[in-house]
Parts: sequence; C-alpha cells; structure tokens
Amino acid sequence: MGYFDAASGAPLHPVARQALLAALDEGWADPSRLYREGRRARMLLDAAREAAAEAVGCRADELVFTSSGTRAVRTGVTGALAGRRRVGRHLVVSAVEHSSVLHAGEAHEAEGGTVTQVAVDRTGAVGAEAYGAALRDDTALACLQSANHEVGTEQPVAEVAEVCRAAGVPLLVDAAQSLGWGPVAGGWSLLTGSAHKWGGPSGVGLLVVRKGVRFAPVEPAETENLPAIVAAAASLRAVRAEAAQEAARLRELTDRVRARVPQLVPDAEVVGDPERRLPGIVTFSCLYVDGETLLHELDRAGFSVSSGSSCTSSTLTPSHVLRAMGVLSEGNVRVSLPLGAEGAEVERFLEVLPGVVAGVREKLGAPSPSPAAVAEGDDALVVDALGKLCPVPVIELAKVIGDVPVGGTVRVLADDEAARLDIPAWCEMRGQEYAGEEPAEQGTAYVIRRTR
Amino acid sequence: MGYFDAASGAPLHPVARQALLAALDEGWADPSRLYREGRRARMLLDAAREAAAEAVGCRADELVFTSSGTRAVRTGVTGALAGRRRVGRHLVVSAVEHSSVLHAGEAHEAEGGTVTQVAVDRTGAVGAEAYGAALRDDTALACLQSANHEVGTEQPVAEVAEVCRAAGVPLLVDAAQSLGWGPVAGGWSLLTGSAHKWGGPSGVGLLVVRKGVRFAPVEPAETENLPAIVAAAASLRAVRAEAAQEAARLRELTDRVRARVPQLVPDAEVVGDPERRLPGIVTFSCLYVDGETLLHELDRAGFSVSSGSSCTSSTLTPSHVLRAMGVLSEGNVRVSLPLGAEGAEVERFLEVLPGVVAGVREKLGAPSPSPAAVAEGDDALVVDALGKLCPVPVIELAKVIGDVPVGGTVRVLADDEAARLDIPAWCEMRGQEYAGEEPAEQGTAYVIRRTR
Repeated sequence: MGYFDAASGAPLHPVARQALLAALDEGWADPSRLYREGRRARMLLDAAREAAAEAVGCRADELVFTSSGTRAVRTGVTGALAGRRRVGRHLVVSAVEHSSVLHAGEAHEAEGGTVTQVAVDRTGAVGAEAYGAALRDDTALACLQSANHEVGTEQPVAEVAEVCRAAGVPLLVDAAQSLGWGPVAGGWSLLTGSAHKWGGPSGVGLLVVRKGVRFAPVEPAETENLPAIVAAAASLRAVRAEAAQEAARLRELTDRVRARVPQLVPDAEVVGDPERRLPGIVTFSCLYVDGETLLHELDRAGFSVSSGSSCTSSTLTPSHVLRAMGVLSEGNVRVSLPLGAEGAEVERFLEVLPGVVAGVREKLGAPSPSPAAVAEGDDALVVDALGKLCPVPVIELAKVIGDVPVGGTVRVLADDEAARLDIPAWCEMRGQEYAGEEPAEQGTAYVIRRTR
Repeated sequence: MGYFDAASGAPLHPVARQALLAALDEGWADPSRLYREGRRARMLLDAAREAAAEAVGCRADELVFTSSGTRAVRTGVTGALAGRRRVGRHLVVSAVEHSSVLHAGEAHEAEGGTVTQVAVDRTGAVGAEAYGAALRDDTALACLQSANHEVGTEQPVAEVAEVCRAAGVPLLVDAAQSLGWGPVAGGWSLLTGSAHKWGGPSGVGLLVVRKGVRFAPVEPAETENLPAIVAAAASLRAVRAEAAQEAARLRELTDRVRARVPQLVPDAEVVGDPERRLPGIVTFSCLYVDGETLLHELDRAGFSVSSGSSCTSSTLTPSHVLRAMGVLSEGNVRVSLPLGAEGAEVERFLEVLPGVVAGVREKLGAPSPSPAAVAEGDDALVVDALGKLCPVPVIELAKVIGDVPVGGTVRVLADDEAARLDIPAWCEMRGQEYAGEEPAEQGTAYVIRRTR
C-alpha cells in the first residue's frame, strides 16, 4: 500500500506507542496533585517537557504542551497580540500560512485588529526584505511557517527573524512541518508544533514562548494530556535520532518524483522550491484534470495522497497556497512520504500515475497534449464555460486556442472561482499572454491573447 | 494502595485501553480524507459518535468531540452566547460550577457581558425557583452542573431546565461528573462532558447542542483526536453497562464514610447532600487542620485524596464551592472512589484517618476537642492572628472561647482569607454566634459572641 499523505497524519511511531502504553500505566493521574500518583505523573511530564525543549532548542520552562498544533497557534497568536496590545494591533503573516494561523488572523480582524499578508514568489517563499517592509510601528506580532505544508518550500526564517528583531517585533514560527527534521534556526520569539506530524499521537501540540517575550495568555492553561504528551516527546527524540539519514533517503525519493513526473505526464507542473524544501514532500499539478477524481483513481490504484489545500480540499475551493504562488491548482497532487517509505512504492506510483492521469483526462474530454496547428480566426472568440467546474473552463480554452490567430484574443466566460487561478497559470505554462479579467453579465470574462 | 481521587482522574478503563490500541492501528489517519485510511478513520469516528450519542440520549449529529471537557464548556458557552447575542449578553451560572464554567463567565464579563451567580444552600444545591428568579429578558444562556465535583451534590437539573424552557433561555448542563452514571434527565439545550471522568483517556471532551438551539461557534472546529475518541466512546459504553450495580456498591461505601467520620474524628463535618448525591464522592472537613498537611500525611499512610477546590488547592485559596455553601473549608478532604474501589480499602482509610487528623492537630497545637469550662472574662477580648495561616486563626479562637463569658464577644484579627469562611463555619458547628466582621488597622476583625 502506498500511503503518501504523511503531512496530514501518520501511524504512531513504534517508540511513541511503547511510551504511550507505559504512560497509560504510570502517568494517568493529575500531575498537579500532591499524592504519589500525581507526583509520578508530574515526573513524567517534566521529563517529556525537558526532552521536547532539548529537541526544540529552548528552556523547559519556555515550553508548554497544548491540545493540538492548532491550539498552540491560537494560544500563541492571541497571547502575543494581547501582550503587546499597547504597541498596536497589527499582525503580519505570510500568504501561505497554515489555516490555523490564517484563522487566528481572521479572528483578530473580527475583533478590530489589522492583518497584512506578505506575498510569496512562485516557489512559495517569502523574501526577508518584503517581509520587513510589511512591519510597522504598530505591528504587535509577525508569523511565519518554517516550511510550507502543501508544497514543502522552506521559508527564510532566520533572515526574517533578524528583520523582525531589528524592528522590535516578535516572530512566531509555525514549525509544524519541520520540527521532526530539526530545530528551527534563527532568533524567533515564539514557536509552535504538532506531535501528529512527527509520529506522535493526535491531541498534542507545543508552544514555546521565549523568556522576555511579552505574553498575556487569553485563556487559563489547559490540563495536560499526559500519556499522549509522554508519547509525543518520545517520538520526537526517536525521529530526530534518525532524521539526518532519513532526510537524505526521502529527499532522493522525492527528487525522483520531481524529475520524472514532468517526463511521464504531459502538461504537468511540479511546484515548490527544488532545493530549499522539506525532504518528504513533492507537489505537482496536472492540466485538464479534476483533483478529486484523480484522488479517487489513485486511491483505487492503492495510493493515498492529498490534493490542493489540506484543509479545504473537500469544499473544492482552490488552495490558498497555490493561489498565492500563482501556480496551477487543477489536478493538484501532494505526495508526502512517511518515514520509512520505500523506493519500490514510489516507483510503482510513477508507473501508475501516467495512466491514471490519462484516464481522467479522457473522461473529461481534455485536448491532446500538443495543441493543434494555428488557424486564422476571429478576434472576438468567446468560450462559454458558465456553470462548468474546474478543470472544464481550462479544457475548453485549450481546445479553442488553436483557432485564435497569433495576436488575437479569446474570452473565457466562467463562474467557477478556480478559473481565476488556473487560466493565468495555464497561460504561464503554455507561454500565452493572460490579458486580465473583465466583468461579464454572468461570471467573469478571462481574456487570453495568443502569442505563439 | 488507596487511590481515592477518581473525580480528578482515573486509570484508563481496560475496555478503553483495548479500544485505544485497536484505533491506533486502524484510526490514525485524518477522517476528512477520501482515501481508504481516511475512510476507515471516518467509520471509527462515526461509530464512536453514535455510541456516545446513544449514551447521552441525543442524535449523533448533535454531538461533537472536543479536546477536553474544559474546551467543550468553553466552546459551548461562547457559541451559545454568540448565537443569542441579539437577545442580550446576560449569563446565569450557579455559584458552585466547575472553574471551566466560571472562567468562561469571567471571559464573558471581560468582553462586556454580565454574569449572575445563583447562590446554593448549605448542601451545595441551587433551588429551581431561585434559579428562575435570576433569568432576565436579556439572558442569553444559563449553565448548571449535573452534580458538584467537590461535594457530590446533585443539582435539580430537570426542574431548572423547565424553568429555563418557560423563560425561553437555553440551559447548558456541565455533566462532567455524572455522565458515566447515566444520561441527564430533563429538557436541557446543551451538554458537556469529559472522557477522563468516565474512565476514558485525557484529551477528549464532548459537546452536545440540541437541534434548534441557536449556536454560532466562535472558533473553527478542531481536528478530531481520533484514537482517543474511540477509546472514550468504548469506555462510556463499558461503564454504563456496570453503572447501576457499581453505583449501589460505591454508595454503600461512601455511606459508611459519611456515617463514621463524625463518630471517629472529633470536630469533623461531612458536607454535601446526604441523599441527592453522586455515588462515589464524600467530602468532609476537620476543624483545626491544615488541608495540605493532612493530604501529605494521608499520602504517607497510602491514601490519595484531594482537598478544597480541585483546581485551586495548590494556591491555598479556599474552595469557591465550600465558600458558596458556607461550610468549613479547613481540613477539607474529598474522597472520590474509583470504579472497583474495595470495601477493605475504605475500612483501612477509616482506621487510619483519626490518628492522622489527631497528629496534625497536635503539631498545630489545636485545642482539645471539648472546649474548656466557662470562665468569666473580658468583653473586649482580642485574639491577634495576623500573619497566621489557616487553620491557626480558628485554633486560636477555639483556645480562648472558654475565657469569654456567655453573652460576651471576642474579636479575631486575621488577614488570611480563609478565616472569612472558616470562622463563621466554626461558629455554626459550635453553636456560637457569628456577629460579623469589622475593618481593622491590619486585616479584618471577626466578631464572635459566646452564646453557650
């Protein structure tokens, strides 16, 4: 079986399982209690906190465990904003943060705060300079992920931390995707993580607040979820011990996918930074393919992958990450390899993928990979794709582009939001010019100029 | 070993442990995913929700799992208040709610809402009439626990729900302490629970919102903590299957404690309702004893109990529950028996307790149990207990009361907050008259009139 969605979740690490069983016997009591069962639980909790702090690279008294990574983000963001309320109510985030950070920002806006989203480049990375330009006198907090959960691109955290330090703004790093691989470098102020991402159990996050950072928790501290915390800390130590070797191995496997998908699948685009990236994640998009159907077909072939945004795929809204990067979202596939993923599984995936994509395209009536020859035509060509869902508008566009004279334009009428992202992305991939959108009686008219 | 603090936490039920292990293998994936591992997880989650809903007595689509009982309360209270914001911003709670409810109330006040606390009688119960009197036209929500976590007293939930229904106010029931014993009767609107209290794992709460109740969640839904949820639901079914039999057995054991502690320990008061109460909890207070020392000595003798408020004992603030009841808080002991607690352990506890209490009293220089004979004396007697911590002010009072003529008064100067509660409680126990407090240069002067 090819389970390739480790970025969503993975089976409990064997070391974590063992630790969980031991802690269920020894650490079930309330660690705040003074009797023996409570003291025993307290010792386990303290040891787990020490181990996690060592792995993060902080002091044990700077780290608390939370009920999830999302909760750690929420508590960290609200507490840091409240602690610097006198400075102002401005929050800076990157445009490709995890939904937990973006939701915290939306809640902040709903309460009267302001949020600036820093744009990313086509690889999904922010620039330290652009990030610095977003900081203001009233900026209370800045947030940046260590690496992106959808495309694997690593962010320049150390450089951004330096820019924030110079501006006197604390930086919260969402390290959910990278903490299993190593500590986060640089002078960050707050850091969050999620045990489920490093082979630990669900229900455990961590929040680090550096000494000296102003922090005013908005809610009382939670009761610690003890046996799970012990398992989480044990797992973090265990994956760290294998991290360097496993990173090299997985990186070689994802390199293979990065290199070969564009060779094996026509009209596919691998996204994310080819170098500065997480070892186990590779993401690509296939023109003229519907993501959900592709997932179903891959599942039937024995492969479990995710598509688009990890949090919004089921509603079929295009991923905010791919949108911010300006890359294609249709037919999007994220392969995230679990620890121990085997090369043979990856090879079998590469064998199966081209046929699956071709099958989906055939069902949807996609054009043949190479567009037909040029024909003279009508400058006012309009494709009516109203009521058609992604990827049909792009398929219809690709079918008629050959009928447009070079220099001429075609308008695609569409009301599926995904078209706003995918039509420009198709132009970029095909070397055609995207000339912008115009209001239309229904939906939107996307204007494409044929340049070749 | 006598672990008598089940109301704080208990070892995982064997059925829950088995379910947890199975779910770690089968239910580790994200249940929102469409691939096979996700679908398998979804099936386990749906089955757990069905089982929990059946035990609660609600529809499965009315129930969500949360990351703790505290989180369930928080989400329930904030969501119900937001859903009825147009009606008003008034919240009604009882004075003896769990800290999670009171904290939610404090947060509501901090945001400009108002909170009314309904007083309780000496057993810790609210009256439905008094509760109804607190409801107003702008009351958005009312909260009442099913049973008290410190003294075990059951609240008249069905009557209060009826009063709320008549006033058109939704009632949220915090059923954390009782859900393992049975469903909550009456027409409540929202209900919360905590798996850790029914032999399930930490990290799982549940929130029920009846269809038709206006509810506007303040935060996005959390990712479900799946293997733990499966274990929680399995545990709830298992404890319910044994509930009737086990309730009768534990009630007989706590009856023994209720009856014999006042016989065995001089100057001890058993608190809470003798009839309408949880089967496994019995709480008493011992005059002239410091709660923390008593816990330590009981721990040394092999018994794990809690004292005062379950959430504030370590700060030595008197329990808000005992305060609201107007009963003695010093030397407070809560015995909460775990499922399967043995009669022999309880007997041994009753054997050990008198000597432990006597030892603590001797160390503190407490007066002999029967106050000395009457002597004539000074109407203006003042006892200076400034800077002395509970239970010393009461010990000093007891030492001099014999020197006060009948009809005369004594003033106790004290600055420990516990004195405000314990001196009136001592008067009640001793049949003396508490004549109120007066401001003093330092601390407070508590005035006691000798009546016998």
